Amino acid sequence: MDTKIEFLFLNEEDMIKAGVLDAGHCVDTVGEVMSLLSSGDYLMGGKEHNDHGMQLIFPKKSDIPGFPLEDSRDRRFMAMPAYLGGRFHLAGEKWYGSNGRNAKKGLPRSILMVTLNDVETGQPLAYMSANLLSAMRTGAMPGLSAVYLARKDSKVLALLGAGVVNRTSLMAIMAKMPGIEEVRIKGSSPTSKTAQELMEFAKDNYPQLKEIKICGSVEETVTGADIISEAVSVAPHKWPEIKPEWIKKGCLIISSGTVDVDYEFTKKHITKVVDNIGMYEEYINVYQEYDEAGKPVSMGVPGMAYVNMISEGAIKKEEVQHLGAIVRGVEPGRSSEDEIIMISLGGMPILDVGWGYECYKKALEKGIGTKLKLWDTPFMA
Amino acid sequence: MDTKIEFLFLNEEDMIKAGVLDAGHCVDTVGEVMSLLSSGDYLMGGKEHNDHGMQLIFPKKSDIPGFPLEDSRDRRFMAMPAYLGGRFHLAGEKWYGSNGRNAKKGLPRSILMVTLNDVETGQPLAYMSANLLSAMRTGAMPGLSAVYLARKDSKVLALLGAGVVNRTSLMAIMAKMPGIEEVRIKGSSPTSKTAQELMEFAKDNYPQLKEIKICGSVEETVTGADIISEAVSVAPHKWPEIKPEWIKKGCLIISSGTVDVDYEFTKKHITKVVDNIGMYEEYINVYQEYDEAGKPVSMGVPGMAYVNMISEGAIKKEEVQHLGAIVRGVEPGRSSEDEIIMISLGGMPILDVGWGYECYKKALEKGIGTKLKLWDTPFMA
Repeated sequence: MDTKIEFLFLNEEDMIKAGVLDAGHCVDTVGEVMSLLSSGDYLMGGKEHNDHGMQLIFPKKSDIPGFPLEDSRDRRFMAMPAYLGGRFHLAGEKWYGSNGRNAKKGLPRSILMVTLNDVETGQPLAYMSANLLSAMRTGAMPGLSAVYLARKDSKVLALLGAGVVNRTSLMAIMAKMPGIEEVRIKGSSPTSKTAQELMEFAKDNYPQLKEIKICGSVEETVTGADIISEAVSVAPHKWPEIKPEWIKKGCLIISSGTVDVDYEFTKKHITKVVDNIGMYEEYINVYQEYDEAGKPVSMGVPGMAYVNMISEGAIKKEEVQHLGAIVRGVEPGRSSEDEIIMISLGGMPILDVGWGYECYKKALEKGIGTKLKLWDTPFMA
Repeated sequence: MDTKIEFLFLNEEDMIKAGVLDAGHCVDTVGEVMSLLSSGDYLMGGKEHNDHGMQLIFPKKSDIPGFPLEDSRDRRFMAMPAYLGGRFHLAGEKWYGSNGRNAKKGLPRSILMVTLNDVETGQPLAYMSANLLSAMRTGAMPGLSAVYLARKDSKVLALLGAGVVNRTSLMAIMAKMPGIEEVRIKGSSPTSKTAQELMEFAKDNYPQLKEIKICGSVEETVTGADIISEAVSVAPHKWPEIKPEWIKKGCLIISSGTVDVDYEFTKKHITKVVDNIGMYEEYINVYQEYDEAGKPVSMGVPGMAYVNMISEGAIKKEEVQHLGAIVRGVEPGRSSEDEIIMISLGGMPILDVGWGYECYKKALEKGIGTKLKLWDTPFMA
């Protein structure tokens, strides 16, 4: 019996060679993944199969000297396991550590790795640098959302947040929406270096754009935009607010980070779409905060607000549409040119497994990466 | 700024060279880990910081052709993240896939990998084959339990289950309990190949043993034993039963797998010890089954029975001792020679991080393993 196990290690350079930055292909792939989600051909963690992942939650303080604290932005570790069916038919997980202080060291805020596993034996097939993988699959979801939910004649794209997620969102949206003429960028400040860099990136890569500008306020950024892509990571309850009067008729709001949109306005005047309602139900269990009267406060995540609206009986669960069901044609998506739609995107490990598999396949075809041997014969079997 | 990231890959052979099979050192290390657990200097997953891990739970059936099912023993994937403090001060996780059908392929039932991460930046430090790591740290816990909870004059060791866990439990107990003279082994059947192999292993490695025998029944195996180490993995509700009348006075029962011991007898006549009560409380949430009257049924895990005893008010929470507190000397452990003690061990990722770190350190010292580059400069930071 051949019991030798080898797997492929792909570092960041290998991943680039294996096509991880191909935004159009990535949008198509996450579309497939959303279809599989909608038809139930997947598993994520937990009893309900829908957990985003398992987090190491650092405390705000500790009596133990040197204990790691939640003392910088996004400080956490997260394990995100999944099985993805269809032609993918493999298991995998993303494991990452994140710390806002990394920026000072010239490092990305999160350092991510993805493992792909044979679903039958459990053996690793690939261990890959997942910073670009994760960024691209995250940006591909706004791209997919735009394809299915934005007006076809969308011209003005507003980017709230100028970090990695909105860079890859821009890549995905530009790959799929040829009518975009204007891009507006709102960074952490008008002079933000990342906002400048994102503007340069847009100029260099999308000569078809007639205007690219950095805006000083949320109002200036979103007013009149056809598509708003929000990807903001800030301290809790400090997220930006989009006021109802700034939202153009027919606008698509895509939330990948945290943002506030008036609860009552959302309830009555916005068509609600999510990637996976089960995930937001789980989020309520783990993350929802309540005011002194026991009422849920905004957590900046539209999908959590939708779950709260369902819980309080204000809307029916069926009113919240799923992107995957829209891709499959079993839910309507946009039904009028004037409709305002808001989609909440939370990030799911099935996306990492799906896009990881595409890169892995290409790496195998092209002979990219480092083959690593786990064992010739297991010491104990 | 130097933003290059490299980490160490250790395959199974490397791990052996790095000392992963050193049972005595491993018992000492898990003792340190239990102390840190007891003093709160650790984090595991979830809100309460005590989750064993996040599982992909395969369904028993599915309408989707080819969907992976819970159709063999132990079929699952599991992500187990943790932070471990003290001199370790690092994060990490174990990720594995498991499938009873692997045996037919000459592969271990589970194929496990451990990642160690810098707790500040999140970067991977090591990616290691964890089959031996996991087996050794699992067996080290019965070793540690024996050191702190067995009678010092223990002579007869009964092994229920002849798989990897009881092989490493034997290694750990033999490393620390020089008085053991007799080892009894109960495999899945009297002619079980793994039981034969375990007997040969014991003969080859422990010439001080006066008797090593394979037993045909649980009764024959455990009657008169000073230490019972149970490490059985069978179909749900098929676990072996240890009847009260077979248990010698002063006996230590160590449960690493699944076993039934009469609930009322346990309640009244057994001193109860666990590795981590919080983990069993989480287990109740995820795994507890109930009969038609709504009463919890035995899940074969003593720690879950202890939680149920606390919930029904039959015992006080303080009656359940913690191994780490006993190591630290803040809980009594054994208080008489006649006392029967039963400890429930569930497996925690802090053990993987702890023992993984010791092997990693030795690998660095000795120049063992393959250095892998993640990137020279991150593409997006």
